[in-house]
Amino acid sequence: MDEFSFINSIKQPYYRQSTLQKGIGDDAAVFRQTSNDIVTAVDTFVEGIHFAKKTMPAFYIGYRALAATLSDLAAMGANPAFYLVSIVIPKGWHEDDKLQEIFRGMDCLASKYGLDLIGGDTVSGLELTISITVIGYVQKNKARYRSLSKPGDIVFVTGTLGDSQAGLYILMNEGNYVNEEYFIQRHQTPIPRIDFVKSFANIKRIALNDISDGVASEAREIANESQVNIILNIEKIPMSKDFNQFPLHLQNKWKLFGGEDFEILGTVPVKNWPEIKMAGKQTNVQVTKIGYVDDEKKEGQVFLQESNQIYPLHKQGYTHLK
Amino acid sequence: MDEFSFINSIKQPYYRQSTLQKGIGDDAAVFRQTSNDIVTAVDTFVEGIHFAKKTMPAFYIGYRALAATLSDLAAMGANPAFYLVSIVIPKGWHEDDKLQEIFRGMDCLASKYGLDLIGGDTVSGLELTISITVIGYVQKNKARYRSLSKPGDIVFVTGTLGDSQAGLYILMNEGNYVNEEYFIQRHQTPIPRIDFVKSFANIKRIALNDISDGVASEAREIANESQVNIILNIEKIPMSKDFNQFPLHLQNKWKLFGGEDFEILGTVPVKNWPEIKMAGKQTNVQVTKIGYVDDEKKEGQVFLQESNQIYPLHKQGYTHLK
Repeated sequence: MDEFSFINSIKQPYYRQSTLQKGIGDDAAVFRQTSNDIVTAVDTFVEGIHFAKKTMPAFYIGYRALAATLSDLAAMGANPAFYLVSIVIPKGWHEDDKLQEIFRGMDCLASKYGLDLIGGDTVSGLELTISITVIGYVQKNKARYRSLSKPGDIVFVTGTLGDSQAGLYILMNEGNYVNEEYFIQRHQTPIPRIDFVKSFANIKRIALNDISDGVASEAREIANESQVNIILNIEKIPMSKDFNQFPLHLQNKWKLFGGEDFEILGTVPVKNWPEIKMAGKQTNVQVTKIGYVDDEKKEGQVFLQESNQIYPLHKQGYTHLK
Repeated sequence: MDEFSFINSIKQPYYRQSTLQKGIGDDAAVFRQTSNDIVTAVDTFVEGIHFAKKTMPAFYIGYRALAATLSDLAAMGANPAFYLVSIVIPKGWHEDDKLQEIFRGMDCLASKYGLDLIGGDTVSGLELTISITVIGYVQKNKARYRSLSKPGDIVFVTGTLGDSQAGLYILMNEGNYVNEEYFIQRHQTPIPRIDFVKSFANIKRIALNDISDGVASEAREIANESQVNIILNIEKIPMSKDFNQFPLHLQNKWKLFGGEDFEILGTVPVKNWPEIKMAGKQTNVQVTKIGYVDDEKKEGQVFLQESNQIYPLHKQGYTHLK
């Protein structure tokens, strides 16, 4: 299949976004957005680094790459509208169904959220590399920056943490596991929390971050950008019901540092906490309070609380407070 | 250098675009644009495919990749505002100055046009791969689509064609050449024709395409999208003054099919032709009439005219009309 036929094969038969003026088929795409702010991010995924043939069929490579990128928009409180895909294809691959499968996986997620594929580039190279640019809309001055956290805020997360890493573990280590399918699904088809963040669009101030690198690391980004101290209660971190089948040291590692769950970490004023809980109910997303922002100290630090002891979180993990 | 230090090293000390709300440092960038249409495109460049170590120092890899991507915006008549860079770095490369040089090359061009670097991703892989997303603005309903060509239009190009391929030839084949530096520069630091296209923003209808794949191929895209017949006069195609030092068969190949000159091909109503010539004068860009759009036939075809003979252009070159 030549490039022209390939582009035709992935071109949507119609576009879903009313703001789109021109999709695929010219030097660039054109859209118009006068009432909202525009949000954009890019993420890149390399085979062998971000995913492996063994654990990720082509359909899920596409699905998961787009899900991870959309998660960045969710973490801004934005509603996704468009995506552009640059793909480096190993030579000889053009004939393969696998390329179509990757795009089918992306389209599956895109159609769910009404996104349009409006551009991209397809080139040859040594290893499969997918770079996705996403564009979304958020109400003016309502982007949910990491810098918006304030002393006294409640710290919460969505869903359960560590499941994606548990799913990867199952895929890498043959064995008998309880609820195997659940964990694999959490790894291969994470759900960007778009509906959840949209449902509290009226909250004036809230800081959000998506959990791509583990809750500890994401909390540090918020603490740092907002110059506040965040205290996370390890015992409150939500885990799925069969998570305890895995070795305890892996449970602890995955839930704090595992990442790739693409859940949302947020800090919100106490007065808005009921709205967050309501948003969770409305969108069928579990919401758990896991800590708080220190009322007084503002050092940009994260602390972990466990059995009434408090440990400072260091960059490479955490060590006991002397 | 870890990822965090690297991001800090390429982060601009200040942003130039007043429409930017949030640059690098959160899950996504945010901007606001209520009065213009927004134009976006992505291009990807792989070492060994799109450029070679031998012919392209790191600074120029960055410069040229951004120039090529901005050329897509120029071909829409758009004014660039932002770019996002995804880069796959071969392992062990993090220490190297080369990475900084690539970003320096991009920044050199970006600062010239007032662009801001607002996002990206840096990952490890086997081969150097750069994927650039550009975002620009164009007056509402003034995007210069390929589909806007009409019977009777004048066909023109900017600059001289084939120079980039001549420069590559010089870099690949040691020898004595006249005006060597000029051709190498045309290959390594092409100029996206942004100022030129901006200077005729008032023209109501004009079809533009940038010459990334050779004028023949770009003309075919316009002919096809507009369903018009385009006649290109081979003898009118502008060449630089020392272009005739190269073998004749290469001259012919380069000027018609060579590409990567990133000049602009356009078709414009006869009445607006003086404005195009004026725009060229104002921005110091050579503009040459090289053909016309057939008054009657509308088959989406391109024809090449030479010594009063007309040849149809086929996909893989052109053959004599029987």
